[in-house]
Amino acid sequence: MYSFKNDYSEGAHPQILNALLETNLVQEEGYGEDQYSLKAAELLKERMNSADAAVHFLTGGTQTNMAAIAAFLRPYEAAVAAATGHINVHETGAIEATGHKVLAVPCAKDGKLTPEGIQSMIDAHPDEHMVKPKLVYLSDTTENGAVYTKGELEAISAFCKSQQLLLYLDGARLGSALTSKANDLELSDLPKLVDAFYVGGTKNGALLGEALVICNDVLKADFRYMMKQRGAMLAKGRVTGIQFLELFRDNLFFDLAAHANAMALKLAETIKAAGYEFLTPPISNQIFPILPDELLSVLHRNFQFFDWEKVDDHHSAARLVTSWATKEEAVDAFTASLKEKVTK
Amino acid sequence: MYSFKNDYSEGAHPQILNALLETNLVQEEGYGEDQYSLKAAELLKERMNSADAAVHFLTGGTQTNMAAIAAFLRPYEAAVAAATGHINVHETGAIEATGHKVLAVPCAKDGKLTPEGIQSMIDAHPDEHMVKPKLVYLSDTTENGAVYTKGELEAISAFCKSQQLLLYLDGARLGSALTSKANDLELSDLPKLVDAFYVGGTKNGALLGEALVICNDVLKADFRYMMKQRGAMLAKGRVTGIQFLELFRDNLFFDLAAHANAMALKLAETIKAAGYEFLTPPISNQIFPILPDELLSVLHRNFQFFDWEKVDDHHSAARLVTSWATKEEAVDAFTASLKEKVTK
Amino acid sequence: MYSFKNDYSEGAHPQILNALLETNLVQEEGYGEDQYSLKAAELLKERMNSADAAVHFLTGGTQTNMAAIAAFLRPYEAAVAAATGHINVHETGAIEATGHKVLAVPCAKDGKLTPEGIQSMIDAHPDEHMVKPKLVYLSDTTENGAVYTKGELEAISAFCKSQQLLLYLDGARLGSALTSKANDLELSDLPKLVDAFYVGGTKNGALLGEALVICNDVLKADFRYMMKQRGAMLAKGRVTGIQFLELFRDNLFFDLAAHANAMALKLAETIKAAGYEFLTPPISNQIFPILPDELLSVLHRNFQFFDWEKVDDHHSAARLVTSWATKEEAVDAFTASLKEKVTK
Amino acid sequence: MYSFKNDYSEGAHPQILNALLETNLVQEEGYGEDQYSLKAAELLKERMNSADAAVHFLTGGTQTNMAAIAAFLRPYEAAVAAATGHINVHETGAIEATGHKVLAVPCAKDGKLTPEGIQSMIDAHPDEHMVKPKLVYLSDTTENGAVYTKGELEAISAFCKSQQLLLYLDGARLGSALTSKANDLELSDLPKLVDAFYVGGTKNGALLGEALVICNDVLKADFRYMMKQRGAMLAKGRVTGIQFLELFRDNLFFDLAAHANAMALKLAETIKAAGYEFLTPPISNQIFPILPDELLSVLHRNFQFFDWEKVDDHHSAARLVTSWATKEEAVDAFTASLKEKVTK
Repeated sequence: MYSFKNDYSEGAHPQILNALLETNLVQEEGYGEDQYSLKAAELLKERMNSADAAVHFLTGGTQTNMAAIAAFLRPYEAAVAAATGHINVHETGAIEATGHKVLAVPCAKDGKLTPEGIQSMIDAHPDEHMVKPKLVYLSDTTENGAVYTKGELEAISAFCKSQQLLLYLDGARLGSALTSKANDLELSDLPKLVDAFYVGGTKNGALLGEALVICNDVLKADFRYMMKQRGAMLAKGRVTGIQFLELFRDNLFFDLAAHANAMALKLAETIKAAGYEFLTPPISNQIFPILPDELLSVLHRNFQFFDWEKVDDHHSAARLVTSWATKEEAVDAFTASLKEKVTK
Repeated sequence: MYSFKNDYSEGAHPQILNALLETNLVQEEGYGEDQYSLKAAELLKERMNSADAAVHFLTGGTQTNMAAIAAFLRPYEAAVAAATGHINVHETGAIEATGHKVLAVPCAKDGKLTPEGIQSMIDAHPDEHMVKPKLVYLSDTTENGAVYTKGELEAISAFCKSQQLLLYLDGARLGSALTSKANDLELSDLPKLVDAFYVGGTKNGALLGEALVICNDVLKADFRYMMKQRGAMLAKGRVTGIQFLELFRDNLFFDLAAHANAMALKLAETIKAAGYEFLTPPISNQIFPILPDELLSVLHRNFQFFDWEKVDDHHSAARLVTSWATKEEAVDAFTASLKEKVTK
Repeated sequence: MYSFKNDYSEGAHPQILNALLETNLVQEEGYGEDQYSLKAAELLKERMNSADAAVHFLTGGTQTNMAAIAAFLRPYEAAVAAATGHINVHETGAIEATGHKVLAVPCAKDGKLTPEGIQSMIDAHPDEHMVKPKLVYLSDTTENGAVYTKGELEAISAFCKSQQLLLYLDGARLGSALTSKANDLELSDLPKLVDAFYVGGTKNGALLGEALVICNDVLKADFRYMMKQRGAMLAKGRVTGIQFLELFRDNLFFDLAAHANAMALKLAETIKAAGYEFLTPPISNQIFPILPDELLSVLHRNFQFFDWEKVDDHHSAARLVTSWATKEEAVDAFTASLKEKVTK
Repeated sequence: MYSFKNDYSEGAHPQILNALLETNLVQEEGYGEDQYSLKAAELLKERMNSADAAVHFLTGGTQTNMAAIAAFLRPYEAAVAAATGHINVHETGAIEATGHKVLAVPCAKDGKLTPEGIQSMIDAHPDEHMVKPKLVYLSDTTENGAVYTKGELEAISAFCKSQQLLLYLDGARLGSALTSKANDLELSDLPKLVDAFYVGGTKNGALLGEALVICNDVLKADFRYMMKQRGAMLAKGRVTGIQFLELFRDNLFFDLAAHANAMALKLAETIKAAGYEFLTPPISNQIFPILPDELLSVLHRNFQFFDWEKVDDHHSAARLVTSWATKEEAVDAFTASLKEKVTK
């Protein structure tokens, strides 16, 4: 059985494990004040062309989202997210557990937010009898594998500034987004467009780790207090620092994401060639082909993946996820199974 | 410069890193449902002779304490801890951030709680105008390196049961406690004596990781919801599972702790032989020799460690911490420096 | 200008103020342990035919909802409410501020929940990566003036029991509901059907005050701790006790609500007779006639009320609210204005 | 039985009840936007000579403290209070329930804070591994009936400014403080010395109600959101507005407090004349005479009051509390009982 269930089925890229091994017995400061973490933060700031950004390393997406959002908001302020947004659905109420409502904007299949959607939430919350929309949460790629264009993100950014809303970008799959053929954003564009974002390591080759980047000066103060309080500060902070150092020392972060995308694209093209449609355009490392249920059950014999949603009585969309670790042979085996069934 | 500042200055024991390497490309379920985590949990339950316990792996002590305590208490219930307890002082109000007061019991230099101390908090909180003391928090070893005897823990356990208080043990340094010469507890005693506890990995050879053990049936339900909500559930849960598998496959967990203790004891004996006293008896991997300030400044030239507290105008207690990674040569170099200065 | 904006524009029913005056200098225990509060609780339990219920007096609806719901849920459990529900929209995130997500079920214009709607939330939240739906919140009357029939409430109650969900009823306007012509519930039915509910005083003749009734034994313990912690326990608890004693000593609570309903019905009938429709059937003290915008602006010259929503380019629904204090002359003046305009 | 247990045993001063009666049927805006509340706020600002202050009316002390402190602090910031402070002991963890630690400063019998005490908390919390002390809480009078002099409050105020700490004063018994013979503060001094404070109505003649005054511009924004969210915004906000209008229309607030103090002083002088000492100097409406246990049990036959603490094997301090409603005959009866016993 080969798994296309997610992008965290394996451990870390070998180069990262090697770096952990090589540095293992060097004595370092704890709690993220080690040389590796400090260097990794500097490196990221260089890569983003943003000397003033504040960079912190945390261990997972839910943790990063909740520590950041809770740090940025006053008690009665709310986050605005797409209805399908990770913070709205898949974090077991982590944001609410910090006291903040998530305002869910109905959205299209692609899971993207728009200025109009955000405006609708502002209109619906005019006074102190309702929460105050204050922070806009989006993710790139979205939950459904879509990628924001530079124009789309600029429009949202300008809208947020005009409405004094903070803009926060969840980059759990930022690598896949930035290396997608549909993308025209650079990593260095982000600090100009958002107030804070995170660069996801866990889903792009790290054992664990997300790099939170706070771009807006007003939001920077005392974030280490917040990390410690929310259980997000590792005693051996080196563990995340070393990994990000490897990911950004050369081009590893982008190479790994490009591989994931390439594997997804290869899957998508063969599926397309076999005559199938997709729920949303296949442009990142999550793709959603619509396949006959009968074919799906055949494929499930040798492959693990999620059946995403029923499309009609005989077809469902599957979710196939590739990663830095996806083997081309597995992709080929999958498409072979698919073609074999099709031609029978 | 060699550091005796803490027990998390290095990475992980090589056997653990090797295990991470060897399993690296095996595809596994996410979020702690991988085979390694499941096996590690089984192994721990065998070692504790407690088939019914629930075992969960988290990434750090503050995170474990806050997720567990917040899961166990009703909103108006409070945790009782020694005034020097980690949750009271060194977790940036993590427990309070979950809504619960920490009731601080004044305690002796050793940082131990007693039934009398806990009783004083019950007496002081008789009705609904005050919080309701409900959970007793203690750590073994304590913040000050002391170790609970079996008799002491049995007395506290019996007291808690008689008062319908939950008993929770923070085992960040449980390895050092259980392998201390002052100890007469077995790991398998704990499930009978406490409602929940954690086995610390971070400070005993793991890259990161703590194993929370919930012994009381009433407290077990839905803890995975709590982990996810508090950002404590790693996508690659294998990272902690594999490490605990190595720590408890044979005797590594205890061997590493015994090494740390041996190194501390060696330090302590030489210091004692040189005529110095200790703030608290040196019996675990944290020792607190009282040294002349002049000697301390000489030692600081080649060694990193914390000056813990002023004792009189010319003497201070230092805190020296050893670990699984402490090199005997470093211990010898330290005591050589000390003796050299003394004999001058 | 006469106001039909809401049912809290005036003070208290004179009989209630007189009771406050007459008892004013009697010395009593504080914090709800006074004789009046104790008697009022007994009286309510008799009226509900529920000797085992626990009754507590709080000062407002938002406070009651948040104290109760936060007391009843574990941290990762969520409340299920109609999308238009008060806790979802009009309490400035009070429930989320206690850490709990509100799951909003899309609902019809009447604002009623159904077993199907609740089921959809259970289906959408199957595991620990999402919050756990645990408590169903509904209000009678709803935000839109609708009234649950006994059959409807029994169906929801049975469904909740079958799914181990708690059922909580917000009775801010319970008086109006129970005296509506559309109602076939008795106050004494509620303890059998719901786990907890509150009887609204503020909107039915009291200066302030809501009586929370906890019917489910499991939820009763320690609620006074919760009240105190959430700022919901008045030092002079007599203030709410005395008022509920008056409301339920004879039939005042129901008489006042019946008056409010009668005034609304009188308004509704004249409006209907003049040829206008309603957004939802006019059956309680909130009615929503759909009127020409031109007529609305004429009516606004002499009457205060909310324009509720645009219906088409030339018509809007208004919200008219009556209360125990609504004067029949005001109703007559309103309908006179309306008819005058219509006949012109 | 006459009660000296507390200052909230009776209802409201008759003038206040009359005002509620007279205005009862006037239709007004809800939620504190009524004319009475607006006028009362203006009046208070005039009396305090502070046109820029923001004034809000809430229903009780715990509610006011928790809404204000939670609004003023970032999540990891803590309040510093005397160990005997109301927020530390008698509010069932209300501040912690909003996520903030209360740092308890050991204090003398009088319950007063000093710059030195506050400094000790700053010293003990130097970095992000501990909470950040940010707000200083004190009450005037203190829990033990003591009164801050202008010099003492100025010293604390200057210290807080120098340390960038916010200063918050709990004025549950501010009336008694400002009319004490030991006081040299004016109400109008407070806005210059503190960042926020509240003027207590409940314990000084109101049915319920506290007026929160926010003096520091930075803290003013959006407080009505906070009130609504925490259940502190009455639908009939007029109830508190009307009461404060009466209290400050002329001199009623001060007259009532002066009466309470005079009654306490009369009690104190007779007790002193009979040869007894006090735990703390009797200067406000709470006094703590040290009496023989035998005498206490005689007095308990006709009077209700709290036995505060054991002083030696045969003596205890009692707490006697007077109020605006205390009858001089009750005072005389008490002292007669005391003298009768003494002379026997």
